[in-house]
Amino acid sequence: MSKKILIDCDPGIDDALAIALAHGSPEVEVVGLTSVGGNVGLEHTTGNALCLSEFYGMDVPVARGADRPLLRAPREASDVHGPNGLGNVLLPAAAGKPLDRHAVEFIIDTLAASPGEISLTAVGPLTNIALALRKEPRITQWAKELVIMGGSYTRGNNTPAAEFNIAADPEAAAAVFSAPWQPVMVGLDLTLQARATAAVRSRFAGLGRFERELLSPCLDFYGEAVQYREGDGPPIHDACAVAYVIDPGLITTVTARVDVETHGRFTSGMTVTDFTGDSGPHNTLVATGLRHEAFWDLLTDAYTRVADPLG
Amino acid sequence: MSKKILIDCDPGIDDALAIALAHGSPEVEVVGLTSVGGNVGLEHTTGNALCLSEFYGMDVPVARGADRPLLRAPREASDVHGPNGLGNVLLPAAAGKPLDRHAVEFIIDTLAASPGEISLTAVGPLTNIALALRKEPRITQWAKELVIMGGSYTRGNNTPAAEFNIAADPEAAAAVFSAPWQPVMVGLDLTLQARATAAVRSRFAGLGRFERELLSPCLDFYGEAVQYREGDGPPIHDACAVAYVIDPGLITTVTARVDVETHGRFTSGMTVTDFTGDSGPHNTLVATGLRHEAFWDLLTDAYTRVADPLG
Amino acid sequence: MSKKILIDCDPGIDDALAIALAHGSPEVEVVGLTSVGGNVGLEHTTGNALCLSEFYGMDVPVARGADRPLLRAPREASDVHGPNGLGNVLLPAAAGKPLDRHAVEFIIDTLAASPGEISLTAVGPLTNIALALRKEPRITQWAKELVIMGGSYTRGNNTPAAEFNIAADPEAAAAVFSAPWQPVMVGLDLTLQARATAAVRSRFAGLGRFERELLSPCLDFYGEAVQYREGDGPPIHDACAVAYVIDPGLITTVTARVDVETHGRFTSGMTVTDFTGDSGPHNTLVATGLRHEAFWDLLTDAYTRVADPLG
Amino acid sequence: MSKKILIDCDPGIDDALAIALAHGSPEVEVVGLTSVGGNVGLEHTTGNALCLSEFYGMDVPVARGADRPLLRAPREASDVHGPNGLGNVLLPAAAGKPLDRHAVEFIIDTLAASPGEISLTAVGPLTNIALALRKEPRITQWAKELVIMGGSYTRGNNTPAAEFNIAADPEAAAAVFSAPWQPVMVGLDLTLQARATAAVRSRFAGLGRFERELLSPCLDFYGEAVQYREGDGPPIHDACAVAYVIDPGLITTVTARVDVETHGRFTSGMTVTDFTGDSGPHNTLVATGLRHEAFWDLLTDAYTRVADPLG
Repeated sequence: MSKKILIDCDPGIDDALAIALAHGSPEVEVVGLTSVGGNVGLEHTTGNALCLSEFYGMDVPVARGADRPLLRAPREASDVHGPNGLGNVLLPAAAGKPLDRHAVEFIIDTLAASPGEISLTAVGPLTNIALALRKEPRITQWAKELVIMGGSYTRGNNTPAAEFNIAADPEAAAAVFSAPWQPVMVGLDLTLQARATAAVRSRFAGLGRFERELLSPCLDFYGEAVQYREGDGPPIHDACAVAYVIDPGLITTVTARVDVETHGRFTSGMTVTDFTGDSGPHNTLVATGLRHEAFWDLLTDAYTRVADPLG
Repeated sequence: MSKKILIDCDPGIDDALAIALAHGSPEVEVVGLTSVGGNVGLEHTTGNALCLSEFYGMDVPVARGADRPLLRAPREASDVHGPNGLGNVLLPAAAGKPLDRHAVEFIIDTLAASPGEISLTAVGPLTNIALALRKEPRITQWAKELVIMGGSYTRGNNTPAAEFNIAADPEAAAAVFSAPWQPVMVGLDLTLQARATAAVRSRFAGLGRFERELLSPCLDFYGEAVQYREGDGPPIHDACAVAYVIDPGLITTVTARVDVETHGRFTSGMTVTDFTGDSGPHNTLVATGLRHEAFWDLLTDAYTRVADPLG
Repeated sequence: MSKKILIDCDPGIDDALAIALAHGSPEVEVVGLTSVGGNVGLEHTTGNALCLSEFYGMDVPVARGADRPLLRAPREASDVHGPNGLGNVLLPAAAGKPLDRHAVEFIIDTLAASPGEISLTAVGPLTNIALALRKEPRITQWAKELVIMGGSYTRGNNTPAAEFNIAADPEAAAAVFSAPWQPVMVGLDLTLQARATAAVRSRFAGLGRFERELLSPCLDFYGEAVQYREGDGPPIHDACAVAYVIDPGLITTVTARVDVETHGRFTSGMTVTDFTGDSGPHNTLVATGLRHEAFWDLLTDAYTRVADPLG
Repeated sequence: MSKKILIDCDPGIDDALAIALAHGSPEVEVVGLTSVGGNVGLEHTTGNALCLSEFYGMDVPVARGADRPLLRAPREASDVHGPNGLGNVLLPAAAGKPLDRHAVEFIIDTLAASPGEISLTAVGPLTNIALALRKEPRITQWAKELVIMGGSYTRGNNTPAAEFNIAADPEAAAAVFSAPWQPVMVGLDLTLQARATAAVRSRFAGLGRFERELLSPCLDFYGEAVQYREGDGPPIHDACAVAYVIDPGLITTVTARVDVETHGRFTSGMTVTDFTGDSGPHNTLVATGLRHEAFWDLLTDAYTRVADPLG
């Protein structure tokens, strides 16, 4: 029986690649996509979730979520993801529509209907997850696990101290990390190891429309927007969180205490990570190491499966 | 046509008196009670909302809300309201039950169904209102007004700087005050003017079961728990907010800028109130003065109407 | 034997009036003036301290102090005190010069030389006092008392939450209030009671050059710059602190816990004042009430003594 | 002509090794040692500075400095440095005494007397430097350079976010880093590269009393107290800052913006380091890489020179 995954996302280029990974992996069944304002505004992230699911041929409900952080003004990353969130990619208009239900309800109801079965995977700001948690505290028991792309235990990317998804809604992240579950934090320390180098990209050649119309233009745009060293490629952050759900063995994790800073002048949104026990009980599984070869094999296989029916 | 009022509350002794005021006032129709954790825990505040509505003979839906603040650990005021929230009063067990719908949904749906008609009146921590706001930003347009019992422009009561309802969930309050509406802040500066002195209480004598079984024991308990000067009586905070909805002319208001402090070491939950324009555009109507005689007339009349059918 | 007073100040109009009060009062001997950046920049406050002492005919050392707060960028109040700090008053250039010693040294050495005898009176930002405290912690034992014009237990004047002297250097104030002494906080709640109304000013008529060249033009300027109600007059903040040193019986005080907020977004520099014991041990004597008649008698007598030799 | 170095320190084991490095290096002349409370209390750090200078045969003034941070309660590291600050080492009682002048005066006067000539090198909390800066802002012009052992651009050691010297007095550090000079931050990222491995220690064998009575017992104690990986050794933090003064070519530096966090709940004392220009103008030279071989050569040569006269 395949694992179930619910992806809360803000597509976003690497979100698109993460959704494709989930869809193309027989080990997991995508039970829903929920959108949140983040990389770009909610109208774009919701629309992109719809368009992507149709382009990939997924039969999956899409629910619209929160359009802004709990407390702060929205901050976007359209410099990295393009004004519409998918670089220069223009997918066909969506035929379907998002659910009438709000993402927060969808998350709560979906988890409640299959307690212990669903990997809740958040690859955007944690606003929806925090709202769901406050409306229905029992989701911490119902979720099989919570896997978060976000945070860092060294340096940030949105600010020197904070990664974008956490910096975008520090209060939501603080609520989520301090709730009684043990999130898996797939942060920058891990995701910066997953780089789409030229060698990696050569493996995607020949994937037809999927490659020509989505994967390549996305990675081209992203590769221009993100800075990295000669010879490296842009990191595929969000796909790492989905990869963990598919096969936890791909990623080394260690337990730690993570506290989210909400009060600093220069550090808001930092995931302060203590590998000792000095700061309090360990509350998080922190991803530290990636099995590169197996990771890219996984992606290549999944993308091949997504690409085949598209021609 | 009577005005409609939706009361978000954490009964709570003065909440009980505020609900009775609304029920006994022909000028307003109570369209719902929503509960929130605050003075005491959510199980008690929800149960009390039910029991009170039945004791008063109200026919009103009750919806259960958030059991804890957005971000912080819950803080209660059971020293002031008794362990069950109503002092030593033990009402008959409720025959009815809360709605299946969460308070946040009930607030959104109720406001959506009657745009421009309902006075949303919050007399507990602002958690439900903030959650509703984040799920459905349009409630700022749908609510006729938002009247808040909370805050202060001089000193607090929970801490030297902060009033209880705001101190209990500063992040929720910050979200609510910074949203695009103009809340009416009925804070301590106003409510400490509404004191149930001996002279006031003598007007409630002869109100039968309502007085014997609820009003007097509540005020006795409250009067013991709250400190005030000889000759004064305990302040009936929450009733002031409902009184404003019934007759705004009872209360003087001035516009001001209110920012809720969330970062201070000693000032979290303070409603920093600027009557000048230096801190930014005015975003709040701040209650400053009470027409005492008319206020107590209003309460006496309403309580008489509540008391009559009870015998 | 007269009491000794060392005045740390940032003249400043009301500083000028406070210095005159001390000089004209036989009960106290002014053993030094130390300057600090505050109402206006240090060059002006030092120069004004010199010029004022010479104009008044004082024989007193003047020591230059800190030109900026411990941590923050300087904030001035030249809108209230005029660009040079004394409204439109232009005193003759000073013949003397400040000491070679820094104010911090002068404070430490002077207190050390007369332990238990000197009332240290701070009527500007507390930067010098904090620096002295850190260099020589024993000044808390050597000072007879520390009397501070600053703070408030209700509302501020520089911001809604903070009084100017504390807001100008919150970190210094936090260090000073948390040190092992019991400062007397003569804050806005007290000083706003000391208003130079028309009736008060009529008592100063006929004080010759002192009145014509300093007192009246200062009060005229100040009265224009500060807002107050019709019939009131501008408050003479700093003179209240000196008056307390001369005769503590003029001012009612109560003990309280004062914590200085340094972390708030909207509340930095607030003197959070707890009259209960909930926030920690009482560490401050807080001024609450002024004996008006006796206060203005004291000022009138002192100013008469200052005015006489000037002609 | 040799460079002049003034070392502000809190000995401390690695301080002892840093002082020895300076004394044993003909390229620099030590013009003074100033003590500050830090690794252990001020009485110990002052006494150790005296004892060490006499043990090494230095003829150098020692001035006692601040016994506590600007604002916060002291935090010590006696678990790492032993209760007296030098592990189990008991040096002979000092024959001399500290200067009558306070460290803050000594720093100001010494820099003033040789403008542009002295490398101010701070290897403890920055309290003295901040106090000197506030008393005499011109020290930023007079110091040839300011070299700080402290901070980190990745992770801390006192907390997950902050290095000990900065965490011990964040407000002082904030004042120092924001002043108009360009400090050299020799932080953990650099100093954790300077490890006294077994191979390194074998080079110190045969250094007589210096090695037997100080170096070895210190490193033994320190090596037990500090955690590191098998095969590594304890990092000699403070010596790196002195090494930079002796030969800047040993250490790679890059410019960056460093802001010291003072407000965070979990991040106070973090040196938030931005290598881009997004956070503001670059204000710091940040040490990133160590030329290991040359560094240990430098230490070995210096220690040999210190050891020789001791026998």
